[in-house]
Amino acid sequence: MAAVLRSYVSGGWQAAEGEGSPLHDAVTGEEVARISSAGIDMAGALEYGRRVGGPALRELTFHQRAALLKALASHLREHRDELYELSARTGATPGDSKFDVDGGIGVLFAYSSKGKRELPNDTVYVEGAVEPLSRGGTFVAQHIATPLHGVAVQINAFNFPVWGPLEKFAPAFLAGVPSLVKPASQTAYLTARLVELIIESGILPEGALQFVCGSAGDLLDHVTGQDLVSFTGSATTAQKLRAHPAIVRGNVRFNAEADSLNCSILGPDAVKGTPEFDLFVKQLVTEMTVKAGQKCTAIRRAFVPADVLGDVADAASERLAKVTVGHPTAEGVRMGALASLEQREEVRRSLKALLDVAGVVYGDPEQVEVVAADAERGAFLSPVLLRADDPERAEVHEVEAFGPVSTLLPYTSTAQVVELAARGQGSLVGSVVTGDPEFAREIVLGVAPWHGRLLVLDTDNAKESTGHGSPMPQLVHGGPGRAGGGEEMGGIRGVLHHMQRTAVQASPTVLTAVTGRWVQGAPRQEGVHPFRKSLAELRIGDSVTAGARTVTQSDVDHFAEFTGDTFYAHTDPEAAAANELFGGIVAHGYLVVSFAAGLFVSPEPGPVLANYGLENLRFLTPVKPGDALTVTLTAKQITPRENADYGEVRWDADVTNADGDSVAKYDVLTLVAKEATA
Amino acid sequence: MAAVLRSYVSGGWQAAEGEGSPLHDAVTGEEVARISSAGIDMAGALEYGRRVGGPALRELTFHQRAALLKALASHLREHRDELYELSARTGATPGDSKFDVDGGIGVLFAYSSKGKRELPNDTVYVEGAVEPLSRGGTFVAQHIATPLHGVAVQINAFNFPVWGPLEKFAPAFLAGVPSLVKPASQTAYLTARLVELIIESGILPEGALQFVCGSAGDLLDHVTGQDLVSFTGSATTAQKLRAHPAIVRGNVRFNAEADSLNCSILGPDAVKGTPEFDLFVKQLVTEMTVKAGQKCTAIRRAFVPADVLGDVADAASERLAKVTVGHPTAEGVRMGALASLEQREEVRRSLKALLDVAGVVYGDPEQVEVVAADAERGAFLSPVLLRADDPERAEVHEVEAFGPVSTLLPYTSTAQVVELAARGQGSLVGSVVTGDPEFAREIVLGVAPWHGRLLVLDTDNAKESTGHGSPMPQLVHGGPGRAGGGEEMGGIRGVLHHMQRTAVQASPTVLTAVTGRWVQGAPRQEGVHPFRKSLAELRIGDSVTAGARTVTQSDVDHFAEFTGDTFYAHTDPEAAAANELFGGIVAHGYLVVSFAAGLFVSPEPGPVLANYGLENLRFLTPVKPGDALTVTLTAKQITPRENADYGEVRWDADVTNADGDSVAKYDVLTLVAKEATA
Repeated sequence: MAAVLRSYVSGGWQAAEGEGSPLHDAVTGEEVARISSAGIDMAGALEYGRRVGGPALRELTFHQRAALLKALASHLREHRDELYELSARTGATPGDSKFDVDGGIGVLFAYSSKGKRELPNDTVYVEGAVEPLSRGGTFVAQHIATPLHGVAVQINAFNFPVWGPLEKFAPAFLAGVPSLVKPASQTAYLTARLVELIIESGILPEGALQFVCGSAGDLLDHVTGQDLVSFTGSATTAQKLRAHPAIVRGNVRFNAEADSLNCSILGPDAVKGTPEFDLFVKQLVTEMTVKAGQKCTAIRRAFVPADVLGDVADAASERLAKVTVGHPTAEGVRMGALASLEQREEVRRSLKALLDVAGVVYGDPEQVEVVAADAERGAFLSPVLLRADDPERAEVHEVEAFGPVSTLLPYTSTAQVVELAARGQGSLVGSVVTGDPEFAREIVLGVAPWHGRLLVLDTDNAKESTGHGSPMPQLVHGGPGRAGGGEEMGGIRGVLHHMQRTAVQASPTVLTAVTGRWVQGAPRQEGVHPFRKSLAELRIGDSVTAGARTVTQSDVDHFAEFTGDTFYAHTDPEAAAANELFGGIVAHGYLVVSFAAGLFVSPEPGPVLANYGLENLRFLTPVKPGDALTVTLTAKQITPRENADYGEVRWDADVTNADGDSVAKYDVLTLVAKEATA
Repeated sequence: MAAVLRSYVSGGWQAAEGEGSPLHDAVTGEEVARISSAGIDMAGALEYGRRVGGPALRELTFHQRAALLKALASHLREHRDELYELSARTGATPGDSKFDVDGGIGVLFAYSSKGKRELPNDTVYVEGAVEPLSRGGTFVAQHIATPLHGVAVQINAFNFPVWGPLEKFAPAFLAGVPSLVKPASQTAYLTARLVELIIESGILPEGALQFVCGSAGDLLDHVTGQDLVSFTGSATTAQKLRAHPAIVRGNVRFNAEADSLNCSILGPDAVKGTPEFDLFVKQLVTEMTVKAGQKCTAIRRAFVPADVLGDVADAASERLAKVTVGHPTAEGVRMGALASLEQREEVRRSLKALLDVAGVVYGDPEQVEVVAADAERGAFLSPVLLRADDPERAEVHEVEAFGPVSTLLPYTSTAQVVELAARGQGSLVGSVVTGDPEFAREIVLGVAPWHGRLLVLDTDNAKESTGHGSPMPQLVHGGPGRAGGGEEMGGIRGVLHHMQRTAVQASPTVLTAVTGRWVQGAPRQEGVHPFRKSLAELRIGDSVTAGARTVTQSDVDHFAEFTGDTFYAHTDPEAAAANELFGGIVAHGYLVVSFAAGLFVSPEPGPVLANYGLENLRFLTPVKPGDALTVTLTAKQITPRENADYGEVRWDADVTNADGDSVAKYDVLTLVAKEATA
């Protein structure tokens, strides 16, 4: 008898009570491991996450967490062979494992990089602009996001035992919220090894990741409004969890990603012989066979113009005939086994319902020829392509066979196919294959309200496209309605999902203290020129005011001549006077910001290394010859880099005229050394 | 017998079957109206909204919808006296009505203005940056948001019969989603009049607003994944609705805003005699008495340093003693009646539970002296201030008396008060009154995960502050956990809540076609200089390439001298060489963009009126003397203004060197005339 998989909770590995239930190799039927969570203290694990994991994570900045994610990704990459070996036992070919294992590691890298680029090196996220709430400017607001103080409970599906847990863990970790991972039983032995590798690495703070192997038991009874629950799996289970009394009582954030009846649409331009026709057929077969079709994102409904339905059926059959099914690691095998014999029974049941309204184009639901394995002891199934000539029948839009199964459906107009696509009641993803951008536009805007992601495949992007079935960490994954109504991942959106957004209303001084960003109206400190200060010395609000410098007519004339910018508003008094926005000659905006730089600069070598950009520049009042300009530069945000001896400083620049009106406002972006050099 | 209030559904006013139930004047007990929705076809109303209202709204651009909101706001402002009159019958003083009526109208104005400033004059919302998905640049992605094709079902609370419906309607309308408004019975006659005014105005497209007066009947049984449900009211009802089978089945977007046990915290610095002490007491009394304390945002728990508890109790009592209770329109009355006798009974029941753990500081739950009204026939109640000396007792954090009731609670440390605040299990709002920014920071960051909004009140903002109890249309309204887990309003967030976010993956050409924004890599059209084209002639992708111009050493020297920007990297060869980022003299970034403008400008008067700003400028490669610069300017986004003869054009600017490397990239913002002038 194989050993029972352990859970990692409350600071240690724990064995469940009793013998557990057996988990079988999908290919050979051998027992791989046993599973049970009997006796695991679920309430204790949640409390441990809140008490130990949360505080440890909240001490780190976003950039520090991002760096740990990267270290973790590198560590796992070194151990991928081991994961691949176990992955084969789930029925996955090396190609399938690439999606799961390398894909999962890729999510960690992607979040690490997003976190570094798009989040501050701080513990508070500041969202959007300062909202003015009063005329006098003494009362302003800012939205901030802070990590929830609970645990992110992550309930995963069997089909992606590595990618699934990692794509939920990464945004939670980056947000500063500890995770409690629960794998689906069938393939839990692979997730268990993944978690062992993570824990052994010692990279994560203790409590940041817990692991419950086996049934969830009474876990959900103990969630509160500060916890979160994410679920991937069937629509039925998603609904059950969403209505769980503790989730409802605490208004617990619940994110579901349920398998849906995703569609792919072939454009009317893409008749047989066009490259788009081939792309469509190739993608359809790929989606049917990768992971033996056990993907929430696989194509279940393939819509093709009625007059090419036969051509598509023929071409797809021809390709499917070349798909060798068998032992996932055997030479030449393109498709492995389903995850378990139970899954195969489930798919056969769904196929039966579909066969009431569709005929078989390719494959036999009851038998398949396999290479290097036993077709009955292993959970093997032939790819099955169906064809339903009446696309209006309910079953094809409602019954999902979660395996290597798709149905071809004819359509006769753009309006009809948009309506048919919507009958899936909400999908994770849809795709359109066409060489006609106008058709693509109509389909995308027509079906977007029912989709979380849409792919338009054409000859321009075919080589670089990641394909219909691949969610990307930087894009929304999840869809409305039947697809669960969730939005997993999606870049920084996925991080913010784990944080509470709070509108803070305060005086500029207090808002500056809360956010660590200088807010217009907060005090400034003048003294030593702030360009003479390293990051170690610089403080938010450090400021320099310089000027006034008068802009003369000859400055404007000269600038026009020197730069070649002879726009009439700068050079032709009569025409400039006729422009209502100016009413006479105005100085170039570029002249204004150049003079401002000449005023605020501190020329000698020092900690300020470079000006790498400018943001949100607005010219607010025209500058006329004779106007005297003053500029005030104030340190607004300081972002030290984790792995460099410098960081970024954002300065508020305000150029005013003699009346005190702002003529230009913008942010100046500089790189500044952390320490003063000798 | 008063008439039964009508519903406005499926294109007309409909009377319910039967006599309905009576609604009583909160002040006199007279029957004001009767209410029933018997016989109203709920499924038909939803279907009508989807079939008629949705398509009509989706034809309009965001700016067109914004303009209608503004027109509606102006129309309602002209009829506010009528609304005030009916409002008084709900027990509201003129001051209370200002919150409800003027507040509601203000939300329409605010959304109109936000829509115009922050949304495109288009039907699709483009969110965030283009996401590169491949090295070669042929495969990119963009998130878009499109309106859901369902109906926004809005279930409102009795306490804000004007503001409540309008703050839900505005973002839905702006998003392009029709609303179905259901008021709470007690004060439905006021909402009914509001809806009559709206429908009579003829401003809205038919089907954009429906109104069901009376019970919701089987309304929710018919919602689907494309509909939304928003609810304001008790936490118990919110939970019931959230678990409604149709809502769960369709993963229907459900937003709840439930009354919560909001807190206000007095800082330890704010002892008696300080202005902050007075601000705290004044705000507490205001929150207790405005709308007779019937506000989801009112202060229920007032935390004060233990050693000033007595002082606060005394000062608050003194102020409360000056609050005259009585007929809402009578001279000198500061507080009117509760909305109904049932509400008064409800509050008295909750008070009883609180009195187990707290003593009365001010007021008598059973009797009150009233002016110009009958204290028993009208739903009058004295303001009641309680004091609980043990702040750890559960009741004070759990029992809400939804009326003019607050409880004073002592605390002894910052850590303790943060923990006590969190015991509310999630609140709409909290406030801190302190003159110490550091204390404010600790409280805000400590309690933020439990709050949707936080106010820091001090002497800086006291004059301009809108106060603890006032949600603002530009800020999140809603809170986690007990507060319902929702986020109503919150500016454009509230609009996006009604739209589906979809990640679109495509080639740059197709993405440009879908979004109407030029995407890097999409084709450009050169020909007539695009600055010679009016909005009527200009197309996305219209482009000009100009240059090359060589930057000479003397250009750099001259620019340094002319502008005064003598930063060493431009003027001191040795020091510049020592800077690793440059390795020698570099041209000023401002020189590069000025020369670029000189290259792409078309000087003669024409449709381009002004350059009003620059965005996202990044200097990517240092420019050395001898480098030849070329610039390509491409029309990226065109936004005609609704009420002007010009609009905004955003141009993509890409300055490259002789190697083809980008040295600077940025967006140029211009104003361009709609039509060419003769």
